[in-house]
Amino acid sequence: MSHDHPFSSFMLEAVALAEKGRWATSPNPCVGAVLVKDGQTVARGWHTAYGKPHAEIECLRDAARRGVNPAECTLVVTLEPCNHTGKTPPCSIAVLQAGIRHVVVGMMDPNPVAQGGANFLRENGVTVETGVCRQECEDVVDDFITWKKTPLPYTIIKLASTLDGRIATRTGHSRWISGEESRRRVHELRRHADAVIVGGGTFRADNPQLTCRLEGIRRQPLAVVVTSQLPDAGAPMHLLQQRPHETIFWTPRAVAASEKADALRALGVRVTGLDRNCKGRLDLHTALAGLRSEYDCYHTLCEGGGMLALSMLEMNVAQELELHMAPKLLADAQARPLFDGRTPSTMEQALGLRICNVARSGEDVILTLRPRK
Amino acid sequence: MSHDHPFSSFMLEAVALAEKGRWATSPNPCVGAVLVKDGQTVARGWHTAYGKPHAEIECLRDAARRGVNPAECTLVVTLEPCNHTGKTPPCSIAVLQAGIRHVVVGMMDPNPVAQGGANFLRENGVTVETGVCRQECEDVVDDFITWKKTPLPYTIIKLASTLDGRIATRTGHSRWISGEESRRRVHELRRHADAVIVGGGTFRADNPQLTCRLEGIRRQPLAVVVTSQLPDAGAPMHLLQQRPHETIFWTPRAVAASEKADALRALGVRVTGLDRNCKGRLDLHTALAGLRSEYDCYHTLCEGGGMLALSMLEMNVAQELELHMAPKLLADAQARPLFDGRTPSTMEQALGLRICNVARSGEDVILTLRPRK
Repeated sequence: MSHDHPFSSFMLEAVALAEKGRWATSPNPCVGAVLVKDGQTVARGWHTAYGKPHAEIECLRDAARRGVNPAECTLVVTLEPCNHTGKTPPCSIAVLQAGIRHVVVGMMDPNPVAQGGANFLRENGVTVETGVCRQECEDVVDDFITWKKTPLPYTIIKLASTLDGRIATRTGHSRWISGEESRRRVHELRRHADAVIVGGGTFRADNPQLTCRLEGIRRQPLAVVVTSQLPDAGAPMHLLQQRPHETIFWTPRAVAASEKADALRALGVRVTGLDRNCKGRLDLHTALAGLRSEYDCYHTLCEGGGMLALSMLEMNVAQELELHMAPKLLADAQARPLFDGRTPSTMEQALGLRICNVARSGEDVILTLRPRK
Repeated sequence: MSHDHPFSSFMLEAVALAEKGRWATSPNPCVGAVLVKDGQTVARGWHTAYGKPHAEIECLRDAARRGVNPAECTLVVTLEPCNHTGKTPPCSIAVLQAGIRHVVVGMMDPNPVAQGGANFLRENGVTVETGVCRQECEDVVDDFITWKKTPLPYTIIKLASTLDGRIATRTGHSRWISGEESRRRVHELRRHADAVIVGGGTFRADNPQLTCRLEGIRRQPLAVVVTSQLPDAGAPMHLLQQRPHETIFWTPRAVAASEKADALRALGVRVTGLDRNCKGRLDLHTALAGLRSEYDCYHTLCEGGGMLALSMLEMNVAQELELHMAPKLLADAQARPLFDGRTPSTMEQALGLRICNVARSGEDVILTLRPRK
C-alpha cells in the first residue's frame, strides 16, 4: 500500500542514499533525504558519518549549491526529522526555516530523545505525511532499531551454499562453493564487524583466522568461537597462535571452569561460560549482549556453521541473513545440508524469513533476508 | 568485456524489447532494436509475432512517427539484420535505405538462410560492430538456437524449493512451498507450453491436471508422464479421467508392450516405449525430439520432480531452469531434497549452471538458470 504513494519512488531513492552511510553513522541511524520539485529530484543528502550533519541538512546544502529553492520543493526523508539538539541542532527547525511546506517521512523516529519532529512541523503549518515505504526505511536502520530496543549488537549471518542448499560434499569438501567476488564480499563484511563468530565445527574444520584481508584495516574484529569442545592450548590453530588476545570462546559453564579453559586463558584467550536455555542450547542472547556491553561490539558477523546460524535465527538474536548462493548443484542427499536439526511435518512449520534484497555477485546471487517479525 | 562497449546499455534495452515478443514469434527468433542519437534512445521496435514486421522495421516506423531521422542515429539490434526475403523483405536493405551509417549487432544470425546482413551493410559502407552483449542476445533467442541446431523442443524446467533446497517435509507435505504469485506464474508458463512433462512420482503424489487455468486459453498443453510404473486404466487420476486424448506416457519399451499399456491406449492415452541409455535412464532425447516432430511441440515445460529434472539437465535436453525459491527454511536433513542421485566428492564435480536472471515474485525469488556450455 505504502508503495502506491506518489512519492514512493523518491523515498526508495532516499533509502539508497541512506545506505551509503551504513556502518559509518553508528551508533546513529543512517538517513537519506531528497528534495523533489515538479516530479524531479533536485537535491540529495545523507548522513555520512557519526557527528556529521544530518541528511536533511546535507540535502539543504546540496540545494543551495544547485541554486534550488527548498520552499518550492517537497522534502522526502527516510526518518522523521530530529527535534532535539545533539551533536547538531534540530533538523525540524532547519526544515521549517528553509520554507518547506510539504514533508514526506518514511518512518517515525523510535528514539524518544529525538522524536517529535513531525508534530513540531505540523504545529507550524507544514503538511507531513508518514509511513511511505516504511518497511524499506525500517530495514535500512534495523541496526539502530536493534540498538535502541535491545541490549544486542546487530548481527549479520553470512552463509554460502549451492543452489540445492548444500555446504559441502558428502566427504566434506567445500572449497569453493561461492565465487571470488562473493568471497571478497566476506572481507568487506569483516571490515565493518566488531566481532566475527563461528561455531566449533567451522573452527575445527577450517582453522580460520577470521581477519579482514583488505587493505587499510585499522583494527581486526574479535574472533568468537561457540563450542562445547575447547581446543588444547597447544593445538596448531591460527586463532590461538596468532591472535590469542583477540579470541573468545563461548562454552558451557562447566567447560569454562575446566583446566583446559585455564590453559587457554594463560595464552591470553578469553573463555566465557554460558548457561543453557530450556532447549539445552547455549544462551547466546546474554553472550551477545555481553559482547556489546563489555567490548563495544555494535556489529557482529556470524559465519556459520549452519547449526550456530539456525540457533541464532531461532533465538531471534540475528537480524540479517546474507546467503551467498552459487549456481551449482551437488544433487546428493548425503551432501552436507545448509541447516539441520528441526523436524517440521508441514510447510507451515517452516522457519519463515523475508527477502529484503537480491543482488548478483559475480556468478553467484546474494540474498539478504530478515526474520519475519 | 562486451559490456564495456559504449552501446551496451542500449543493447540491454534492445534485449528487454526482444523479450516482449517471446513465445509469439516462434518458430522465429525474438529480436529488439533501438535507434540512438547523442547518447539517448530515440526510437524502439521489436518483432511482435511470427509473420509480423521485424524489429528493425518496427523501429524505423517508430522513428517516422516521432519525426526522428534514422540517418542521424546508430541502430542497435540484438540479432544481425536479415538478408533474405521471407515473410517480409530483407531488413539489411531497409537499414541501408534509411541512411543509417552505424549499426551495432548483438549476435550473428545462426540461420544460414537469413544471415549475411552484416556483410551486406559493410560492403555498402556502413560501419557494423558485432558481439556487443552477445551472451544476453543469445539467451533471448535460445529457443530459436535450439530449434535450429537440434531436433529438440525448447524445454524449461520449473521447480520450487525452500531456501535450503527442500521440496517437502520429511512426511511429504509440500503445500505450499512458493507463494500465490509464483504459483500463478506456473500457469503463465503452461499457457505458452505445447506440452507439460512430469515424472511418475509427481504424477502419483499430486494427481495433477497439468492444465493452464488462466482465462482465454485456446488449447491446453499435452500432458506427458515419464514413468516405469503405468497406472491402472481405472485409476482415479485426473489425466486419465478428464484428458486421456491429451495424455502421453513415456515408459520403458517392455512396459509399453504390456497389457496395462493397452488398457490405457483403449482410453485414448498414448503410451510410448523408450530405450534406456548406457546409464540405464530412459532416452529423453529421442522422446523430446518425437514430441517436436510428431506433435509440433516447440515449447515444453517440465514441472519435476527433481529426479526427472536432474536427468534432463544431465542429458543436456533442457535449456532453462526456473527455480522458484521461497524464503523458508525446513532445516531438516530428512526433508525431501530438491535433487538427489549424484555422488560428487569435490565441489568441482558439482553440476554447474549459469544465472541469467533474478526476479522477485511476491515473497519469493525466481532464478532463471541455464546449463554451462
